[in-house]
Amino acid sequence: MSTQLLHRLRQCLAAECIIEEPESQRPYECDALTLYRDLPLAVVLPQSVAQVQQVLKICHELNVPVVARGAGTGLCAGAMPHADGILLVLSKLDRILDIDPLARTARVQPGVSNLSISEAAARHGLYYAPDPSSQVACSIGGNVAENSGGVHCLKYGLTVHNILSMNVLTAAGEELTLGSLGLDSPGYDLMALFTGSEGLLGIVTEVTVRLLPTPEIAQVVMAGFDSISAAGDAVGAVIAAGIIPAGLEMMDRLAIQAAEDFCQAGYPRDAAAILLCEMDGTREEVAQHVDAVVQLFAQLGATSITVSRDERHRALLWKGRKSAFPAVGRLAPDYYCMDGTIPRGQVTYVLNEIYRLSEHYTLPVANVFHAGDGNLHPLILFDASDPLQVRKAEAFGGDILDLSVRVGGCLTGEHGVGVEKLRKMSSQFRPEELAQFEDIKHAFDPGLNLNPGKGIPILKRCQEYRALPARHQHHPT
Amino acid sequence: MSTQLLHRLRQCLAAECIIEEPESQRPYECDALTLYRDLPLAVVLPQSVAQVQQVLKICHELNVPVVARGAGTGLCAGAMPHADGILLVLSKLDRILDIDPLARTARVQPGVSNLSISEAAARHGLYYAPDPSSQVACSIGGNVAENSGGVHCLKYGLTVHNILSMNVLTAAGEELTLGSLGLDSPGYDLMALFTGSEGLLGIVTEVTVRLLPTPEIAQVVMAGFDSISAAGDAVGAVIAAGIIPAGLEMMDRLAIQAAEDFCQAGYPRDAAAILLCEMDGTREEVAQHVDAVVQLFAQLGATSITVSRDERHRALLWKGRKSAFPAVGRLAPDYYCMDGTIPRGQVTYVLNEIYRLSEHYTLPVANVFHAGDGNLHPLILFDASDPLQVRKAEAFGGDILDLSVRVGGCLTGEHGVGVEKLRKMSSQFRPEELAQFEDIKHAFDPGLNLNPGKGIPILKRCQEYRALPARHQHHPT
Repeated sequence: MSTQLLHRLRQCLAAECIIEEPESQRPYECDALTLYRDLPLAVVLPQSVAQVQQVLKICHELNVPVVARGAGTGLCAGAMPHADGILLVLSKLDRILDIDPLARTARVQPGVSNLSISEAAARHGLYYAPDPSSQVACSIGGNVAENSGGVHCLKYGLTVHNILSMNVLTAAGEELTLGSLGLDSPGYDLMALFTGSEGLLGIVTEVTVRLLPTPEIAQVVMAGFDSISAAGDAVGAVIAAGIIPAGLEMMDRLAIQAAEDFCQAGYPRDAAAILLCEMDGTREEVAQHVDAVVQLFAQLGATSITVSRDERHRALLWKGRKSAFPAVGRLAPDYYCMDGTIPRGQVTYVLNEIYRLSEHYTLPVANVFHAGDGNLHPLILFDASDPLQVRKAEAFGGDILDLSVRVGGCLTGEHGVGVEKLRKMSSQFRPEELAQFEDIKHAFDPGLNLNPGKGIPILKRCQEYRALPARHQHHPT
Repeated sequence: MSTQLLHRLRQCLAAECIIEEPESQRPYECDALTLYRDLPLAVVLPQSVAQVQQVLKICHELNVPVVARGAGTGLCAGAMPHADGILLVLSKLDRILDIDPLARTARVQPGVSNLSISEAAARHGLYYAPDPSSQVACSIGGNVAENSGGVHCLKYGLTVHNILSMNVLTAAGEELTLGSLGLDSPGYDLMALFTGSEGLLGIVTEVTVRLLPTPEIAQVVMAGFDSISAAGDAVGAVIAAGIIPAGLEMMDRLAIQAAEDFCQAGYPRDAAAILLCEMDGTREEVAQHVDAVVQLFAQLGATSITVSRDERHRALLWKGRKSAFPAVGRLAPDYYCMDGTIPRGQVTYVLNEIYRLSEHYTLPVANVFHAGDGNLHPLILFDASDPLQVRKAEAFGGDILDLSVRVGGCLTGEHGVGVEKLRKMSSQFRPEELAQFEDIKHAFDPGLNLNPGKGIPILKRCQEYRALPARHQHHPT
């Protein structure tokens, strides 16, 4: 199989676009969740959409698993290779095809980095709003696969809210256009269905994203609080005041101290929690909202309040937040970043539960998260060379996910399911709902060749697939 | 069949909740697209979600088609009854279950009217943004079914962008929860898939919508232009200036004159086109954008510019737009409202083509539309008692849809496909794409009992369905 596969791949790809040697494959063995690793039969790096289509057709014919990978910055092992399959790396499809300032759209290939879209749009006074922390590196194709968010998605939404149309290839190599340049499209909303589907339904070969006018100004208010509950109440107060901040982030003591040690942003080291609340828009609007937020924080007992003086100061205040992961990473040999989402009103309760679990497992935890969205990112500190600590870290993480679901939230906010949360899916979904996911998978990829073992549990249907009619029977599993 | 069905329905519904007499069924024979009418075996009006579930289970068991209906304000015959099925009217499920100002959400039943959500949220300073013209009457369940927009969706998005979670019942009566209260949810985005699916995938029994803070102020600028192309250029200029209006509407001469005769809003009767451009936000932001828009319109040769003086004046300027349909309706015995969407840059070309078609078919046309979104609503005037005029009106409408697709737009902006555009689907979609829609339909409703003959063409699969495995074989067609 492997020989035949490689022979066929060599017929359509240049030699330097196929990586077979295990040592050369190492850079591709995992994504940014390094707990899970594997090596594929081959890493392939097609240079055109036509080549992607040929690769898919070959794998479809030979019944070979296909795992797509963008920049490999994902955090759920969604791009971990499959030992019996190929890793389809889309990084060479990296062209911005077209920017239309009147339609406020950019048409791009999947390997284009998130930030480079905004850079290219800047000369028209436009930008692409979703901004994952990894935006310098992460690809738009990966953003679509994980429905990525970012600090500003409280106001501007996730990837799915900022794209209009995409071209995809199915597992069989069929081309489909999903969505449209219009605001809505007839038929089922397959574009939204594809967004966040983690490479299980097809391969994105082109995306048309919406661009927004760059706000005239942005300003951030940082406030320290002497308890988690005071900071949690302040989040509620901003929302209740009818303000939609561009971002509303919280960090707790361990995260504050690590970030401050790392980049001296001027964070209050003694605070139990800080909030970073950014406003953007016209000069007058921002001034009005900054005043309102400062007043609210003062009323609610903030122990310190800082307003960004200029762009440099604003960047510095954000630098602490944006480098919190590497900063916390210096406190222990390893950390495990979780990603549950909870209702906004449950922040205080859930953080206190996380502290209780931290004592129970005797592992420190630092919390850095999108408070406005209720999207937690607890960072569990541990030593991966100690098998007991690894087991404890995984159990701690699992408890946080269960806790998120229990308070009415969900398993993931923006990092996806991948390998990491696959076994937790049944704690959020009922059997009928999981069966419905399977039916959808089956409607796109009946051979189950796209990213197998990730995203959704395949529970019980292998027998049934064998009995499927002609269109679906090409490659029974 | 009919006897057995009615017997079973009577066991779970009160007598007054089943309408069998054709004369009593008349109010339900069509939705707001009155060209298409039919009567069902029975109209049923369940009073609880449990009753909806029982009705679905009965119809599933007896293999009876089910057509869901909210308020019947739809414009594509999506709620037209099926002669061999039941019409499932959800208007009695009309409770607002919960408003959570901290989470900024409202949990409502499907029969709740769009406007009543905003009315109930007003005491918290919140509102529900999507505002179809029919918002006084139309139901949120219907809004989900058609992914409704409205005048303000340019800034605030469609229904799919403003809902978080829903409970649905499948054709078999299984309960599913789609989406979540978090910003994102693991698994496939079945909530987005359901939105706009026109009752073909399941029945919505509860929706949690997002609420937004009511803007401090809104102001509208009305400008007259002496040509369509000047007005079209002005739309482009507003967008290019980096402004996101809350709404940006265009009306052409026939529509202006009809609206002015109808409600004396002060529209310039001699203009070839007017634009209505609304800004909302804080007082300062709106003032700044109104100034910018007025200046732009003046530079681009507007023949008249009016800025709303106060809320009353603003309401009057919108009244002309919002009553344009009934106003145009007085010009001829009947009108046919179309709903194509086109790229913003094609407005002038497409309107001129529509005028050419109007001459060709010798039927007048008035244009009222969401220019900012490129969502056309040409109103074709005709006399339904003249069969030749009916045929001409249908052909004219079909040409407009083909034209929309040809310039890179799509068949519908917000009114849906229903019966009306079913045969046009193949002009927008390739066979592989239509086959993918069928696979999705099949994944939710293998018996094809939900709203048959609407939304997506079922081309070729009836044979194949017969060969399906157990879970799908309950009711072969």
